[in-house]
Amino acid sequence: MAPDTSTPPRRRGRPPKDRNAPDAPRARLIRAGVAILTEKGFSAVGIDEILTAAGVPKGSFYHYFASKNAFGLALIDAYDRYFLAKLDRWFDDDSIAAPLDRLRAFTVDARDGMARHGYRRGCLVGNLGQEMGTLPEDYRERLVDVLHRWQARTARCLREARDAGEIDPSADCDRLAEFFWIGWEGAVLRAKLERGPAPLDRFAEHFLSSLTT
Amino acid sequence: MAPDTSTPPRRRGRPPKDRNAPDAPRARLIRAGVAILTEKGFSAVGIDEILTAAGVPKGSFYHYFASKNAFGLALIDAYDRYFLAKLDRWFDDDSIAAPLDRLRAFTVDARDGMARHGYRRGCLVGNLGQEMGTLPEDYRERLVDVLHRWQARTARCLREARDAGEIDPSADCDRLAEFFWIGWEGAVLRAKLERGPAPLDRFAEHFLSSLTT
Repeated sequence: MAPDTSTPPRRRGRPPKDRNAPDAPRARLIRAGVAILTEKGFSAVGIDEILTAAGVPKGSFYHYFASKNAFGLALIDAYDRYFLAKLDRWFDDDSIAAPLDRLRAFTVDARDGMARHGYRRGCLVGNLGQEMGTLPEDYRERLVDVLHRWQARTARCLREARDAGEIDPSADCDRLAEFFWIGWEGAVLRAKLERGPAPLDRFAEHFLSSLTT
Repeated sequence: MAPDTSTPPRRRGRPPKDRNAPDAPRARLIRAGVAILTEKGFSAVGIDEILTAAGVPKGSFYHYFASKNAFGLALIDAYDRYFLAKLDRWFDDDSIAAPLDRLRAFTVDARDGMARHGYRRGCLVGNLGQEMGTLPEDYRERLVDVLHRWQARTARCLREARDAGEIDPSADCDRLAEFFWIGWEGAVLRAKLERGPAPLDRFAEHFLSSLTT
């Protein structure tokens, strides 16, 4: 479920002026942070490990982020944006006629994303949610908001499926989307534990088939 | 989902000879470990915090466990035994006529368990599963085995529901039990994040109602 985190070659000379350019240090830190935290979580990872992975000199971290906690919030925002774009790409894909097939395509894409990293990386939101006992309290609302946004996109896809006659006309699509995300985070966690795709496939297939019977 | 972890008063004089007595230091360490790790995870917690909570003198930890990793495995075993007993208590409860009501009663009991601790403590297996990126590799098989045991108990309950005509006679109860546990761990994670019961209730109710339609 993590974005491609291969680091572009570092350039000599002045750093690029656009702080959001893919090879700008701040962007490299975000990419490395998502890659490492989706695998290991927040508590177990030090700033040094992220700086090394990002190829950013030690000591310059605080030039870009006020604290490790501020860095974590920036990671949540970046991950949210990345994931919303992924959901929109599938849910708005007119080349897939049936809305439920768009949801299925998203789950396959997410599974392929986990497979690319050997099922070692989970979902940043699920990882941080599990760690809330030791994270700053303002992470909680931020993480819940992210899940609500993902659920809202998913509910819209389910309403399109309902309008298309794929699922029961009386279905509560907001509740179904919430159910999907509650369980899907469990499936990602289990896939990470088992190092394989079966939990993702089984959750997705059972969820989708339960909608159409 | 955590056991009652209130510590009995410490006694003066010789330590009790039975290492499994509730007030024996080893048992106190296990109780404190489950309480703290279900809230904070493995990586973020040091041995000192557990020793202090257990009221066991610093320096004596290694008298009871070879390492923090060995301690973690002992916690998994204790949690597994505790949880299997809980599942058996509900699934074998003849005072509840319908097998699906027994499964529902388990989910209510688990929710009450989380409520007693303000939804700060999750499931030890889910927490450690999320942390597998930094845990010893032999934790993986142990955690998967635990989930398989819980699933097997749940599948037996579902087969009884099938035999009683509560669910579709063609239902694959092993697959349903796996689906339940994949999603339930997600529900526990979400309840911990939201600090409330709604994810547990919504997952359980939707799962149960999907079996009977």
